[in-house]
Amino acid sequence: MRLQADEALVVEAVRRNGAISRTRIAAITGFSRAKITSVANGLLAKEILAEIGDGVSEGGRKPRLLHFNNQLGYVVGVDLGATSLSVAVARFSGEILAHCSEPVDVRDGPEIVLGRVIDLALDLLAHHDIAPEQIRGIGLGVPGPVEFATGLLIAPPIMPGWEAYPIREAMQSAFPNSITMVDNDVNIMALGELRSGAGVGVENFIFIKVGTGIGCGIVARGSIYRGSTGCAGDVGHICVDRNGPVCHCGNTGCLEAMAAGPPIAQRATEAAHAARSDILLRYLEQGNGVLTAADVGKAAAEGDRIAIEIIQDSGRMVGEVLASLVNFFNPSLILIGGGVANIGFQLLSSIRQGVLLRSLPLSTRHLQIDYSPMGAEAGIIGAVSLALDHVFIIH
Amino acid sequence: MRLQADEALVVEAVRRNGAISRTRIAAITGFSRAKITSVANGLLAKEILAEIGDGVSEGGRKPRLLHFNNQLGYVVGVDLGATSLSVAVARFSGEILAHCSEPVDVRDGPEIVLGRVIDLALDLLAHHDIAPEQIRGIGLGVPGPVEFATGLLIAPPIMPGWEAYPIREAMQSAFPNSITMVDNDVNIMALGELRSGAGVGVENFIFIKVGTGIGCGIVARGSIYRGSTGCAGDVGHICVDRNGPVCHCGNTGCLEAMAAGPPIAQRATEAAHAARSDILLRYLEQGNGVLTAADVGKAAAEGDRIAIEIIQDSGRMVGEVLASLVNFFNPSLILIGGGVANIGFQLLSSIRQGVLLRSLPLSTRHLQIDYSPMGAEAGIIGAVSLALDHVFIIH
Repeated sequence: MRLQADEALVVEAVRRNGAISRTRIAAITGFSRAKITSVANGLLAKEILAEIGDGVSEGGRKPRLLHFNNQLGYVVGVDLGATSLSVAVARFSGEILAHCSEPVDVRDGPEIVLGRVIDLALDLLAHHDIAPEQIRGIGLGVPGPVEFATGLLIAPPIMPGWEAYPIREAMQSAFPNSITMVDNDVNIMALGELRSGAGVGVENFIFIKVGTGIGCGIVARGSIYRGSTGCAGDVGHICVDRNGPVCHCGNTGCLEAMAAGPPIAQRATEAAHAARSDILLRYLEQGNGVLTAADVGKAAAEGDRIAIEIIQDSGRMVGEVLASLVNFFNPSLILIGGGVANIGFQLLSSIRQGVLLRSLPLSTRHLQIDYSPMGAEAGIIGAVSLALDHVFIIH
Repeated sequence: MRLQADEALVVEAVRRNGAISRTRIAAITGFSRAKITSVANGLLAKEILAEIGDGVSEGGRKPRLLHFNNQLGYVVGVDLGATSLSVAVARFSGEILAHCSEPVDVRDGPEIVLGRVIDLALDLLAHHDIAPEQIRGIGLGVPGPVEFATGLLIAPPIMPGWEAYPIREAMQSAFPNSITMVDNDVNIMALGELRSGAGVGVENFIFIKVGTGIGCGIVARGSIYRGSTGCAGDVGHICVDRNGPVCHCGNTGCLEAMAAGPPIAQRATEAAHAARSDILLRYLEQGNGVLTAADVGKAAAEGDRIAIEIIQDSGRMVGEVLASLVNFFNPSLILIGGGVANIGFQLLSSIRQGVLLRSLPLSTRHLQIDYSPMGAEAGIIGAVSLALDHVFIIH
């Protein structure tokens, strides 16, 4: 949907604030009363905004509030990971109407996986009597590097068959009135935090995801920074130890190969087999010979010394890499998300120690380091935000 | 000097292009002919622009060209290093009229050092019959972290007595019609490259200075990125080797302590004393017991194996740190400047190898790594650009 610059400012005020009075819009935009009246009337006539109920009186008559018109349509957010898929349908206000998740194997390729994305979205819509034509925007996060302008994946290491696949066209064939934006999964998590989480109002921050792999989303001067070829934030292959194990990228001692979920599970498995930890051995047996990073977290919570040590080592390595990035990028906030972020408090405190030990005091004086409060939701909320950020075109 | 938004766009077109026709300004700004006429007439009336000579005819009458009015005044650029000081006087076109340098010890404190800055600038002005009142803007680079909004140094490690010193007021007392902007010395080098060097038109790049210390200036989305507390780019204390030597910052194995000018000179001195290199020993004797990084470069140029090895080690370490930053920041250009950049081609090729070895292919596919073509001039050109960037205030 096309907006003029003035209209875009009013729409943005509604997005950020929800139902809002004309007086408040005037305060935010700096527009005169006459201008607000004219722009708002235009948006009401175009059925983009609607008047809803009464606001709180500030002395006189209760003001009528403006919000998005319910007839305007909906957006879809999609968070696609290596092994999981989440789909949400949201109103223009950002309110999520419906949400579902299922396991997926992204290596099945775009036809199969995008087919599931579309089926899940259509199911959600059907349950809410929404027609596919009412979807105006789609935001889609994928576990690989994306050329943002075109929405195409570029040489994705874990997504065979997806390189340069026309995702936008595939989505538009099912949702003919929509525009689809594609971005890296960590970028949409950072965007979720920026738009409605711990990153609201923070100019420069890093969202680091520690899961099967490790990557980060970067917010610079209030918006997602993607770099020159769209692969900024690919920190999983920064070297931690030149003598470390060989990584799937071909180099040795990459952060991802030493501190992500799989190496945590592997070190714990070795300790269990070597009978160095009864607790880990119990989890190994319960798991029929398979230990996960989550099991290591549970063992640590029970006080298992080996499990705690493994988690602390992982946190220290993540912290050391972050220390370099803090010296370079000087953010005021680091948020830690991803599956391994649920492993317990030892990880966070070791990351903090690693950062503080190796960063310059001036860089860390006002630096906050925390687990992402949104957790697993950051991705899907970010995907919805990505759709909403691009559903209006300013001309 | 205050400009309206429309005027600022025209002034910017003159800055970027030099003498320019109204037709060309129209093409750049997208303004109508009538609007150009009205805005240009306003700027002529304010004596900000002047008509100069004739341009090349494009069929009809030769167009009159617009340029900055010579009566408008001048700007001063200052590049202050730990041990050297450069001052330049420039026209609004950016053309440098006069330029001088002298050794300085920044530890003498702000009164003495800024006194020399002012004296040198006044000398240059006197030689060109320019009154101090004709200076409209001053750009000043300093070797420490700066809070850009206030122009104050924050906890500068090598500048005792400068913390929160009112540099702007000191400069204004000598140049009453000027506004002074202060920035970190590496940021102004990056700005010099961005405005008139290898960085023109490059969205995201890193300028790394290798000298007595190591630091970098960051350009993100076409402008200098300073981070949350103004200390972005402080990469000299990123850890290269946990078992490395102790750095003055208190940590061990910092890049600066292992790869900058002083450790290069120190390793060479040790090799000369141990009689492992005749060539280095000769330079040591010629220097009365003192070897510099520049001597190591000369020895390498003569084919000295030890000197070459020392330079290659240094380059490899710089390259490894840059590899991490490339994975994180995904720039399309890295420029290497500072005194040690004159040490020879081995440094550059080792840096390139270090980066390529440890960066992801997608990040380096379009990455260019070069010595700064501006070299030592980048700082003073950047200081002039900094002044020109802020001499007009848009309201």
